[in-house]
Amino acid sequence: VKIGIIGSGRMGAALGALWVRAGHDVCFGDIDEAKAQAAVEAAEGGRACDVPHAAEFGDIVLLSPPWPKFREALQMCGPMQGKIVIEILNPLRPDFSGLEIGFDTSAAEEVAKAVPQARVVKAFNVLPSPLLDPAKRPSAEKISIFFCGDDPEARELTAQLITDCNFDPVDCGALKAARYLEPMAMLLMHMVFQQKLPAEIGFRFLRPA
Amino acid sequence: VKIGIIGSGRMGAALGALWVRAGHDVCFGDIDEAKAQAAVEAAEGGRACDVPHAAEFGDIVLLSPPWPKFREALQMCGPMQGKIVIEILNPLRPDFSGLEIGFDTSAAEEVAKAVPQARVVKAFNVLPSPLLDPAKRPSAEKISIFFCGDDPEARELTAQLITDCNFDPVDCGALKAARYLEPMAMLLMHMVFQQKLPAEIGFRFLRPA
Repeated sequence: VKIGIIGSGRMGAALGALWVRAGHDVCFGDIDEAKAQAAVEAAEGGRACDVPHAAEFGDIVLLSPPWPKFREALQMCGPMQGKIVIEILNPLRPDFSGLEIGFDTSAAEEVAKAVPQARVVKAFNVLPSPLLDPAKRPSAEKISIFFCGDDPEARELTAQLITDCNFDPVDCGALKAARYLEPMAMLLMHMVFQQKLPAEIGFRFLRPA
Repeated sequence: VKIGIIGSGRMGAALGALWVRAGHDVCFGDIDEAKAQAAVEAAEGGRACDVPHAAEFGDIVLLSPPWPKFREALQMCGPMQGKIVIEILNPLRPDFSGLEIGFDTSAAEEVAKAVPQARVVKAFNVLPSPLLDPAKRPSAEKISIFFCGDDPEARELTAQLITDCNFDPVDCGALKAARYLEPMAMLLMHMVFQQKLPAEIGFRFLRPA
């Protein structure tokens, strides 16, 4: 699959590297092109470019800028008609004390409103970035990655990309389930920042076999 | 430990039964005294009484009425000075479409405001009631029960009561972490009602050994 990364920070760069390793064609984009170049080197593959070209390149676009920059990033991406947009945002307050938006909407729904011609999926937000390194994961139990979106095909492809990272995909249905996934991510941050746990924490979804 | 149950419905009755089995002295209370009596019979132990007496009986009080009834239940309980109150409420909208209260407060904090002389802990809300039956749990991996509260001793005792049910206790610190635990429970309900999964689902919290 052709994947464009919008925002090659800790999450974007590491996810892209996993997908390079899984055989996908990845284009790392960032406002700071040196960052995109560094992501290519770390991934030992893929290519680097600016944000508009990364968005144009991908059949799937990973939206991974910092939350306060997402509107600006989307403006640089254009309408992305028909593209699958996987967004991993957590709508944090500037002081990290909680979420900016809540039960009547979600970061995911705000993204979908901003690019109505794209097919938006929420994924990878309930995941501290260190766990993108397979060596840092608890070995016995696979971490679950919760995702949701209104387009079934987009969800199916996202599930595959999650499996490609050796995580356990959990389909949460419609995009508005992001209203629950964003607070879940906040709990992980709370466990790290307030409860002083190490960052290598996550959830496993248990269901009958 | 002496435990008073306020609301002997599915959650209250089954939790009480597990604690009877673990050797605790349990008093099942309910507005409907026949329900409390049925809980005693199902638990093969403990005693049944009305709500005020159950509250008086317990050093630990389990607050497990339906969400719309919690204020009424608390009025019957009195101030519960110094008692540990474990509340398991999810502040559901009447049509189950989401939560009534969100990021600026939580059911747990509302309970704490209503009984300021008690030591309130949030627990057991991220758990579908069928999983209280040990036979219905996935055998290999222990389900995590997330809990939070402002009193360290109350949290410690709650952790013990969770262990007594053969669950994995996860200390989430201050009571306001309930703002994240309540949406997590909503995700489980969403998975059952919208995604049509069976009710035997839950989360396991993964952290380094």
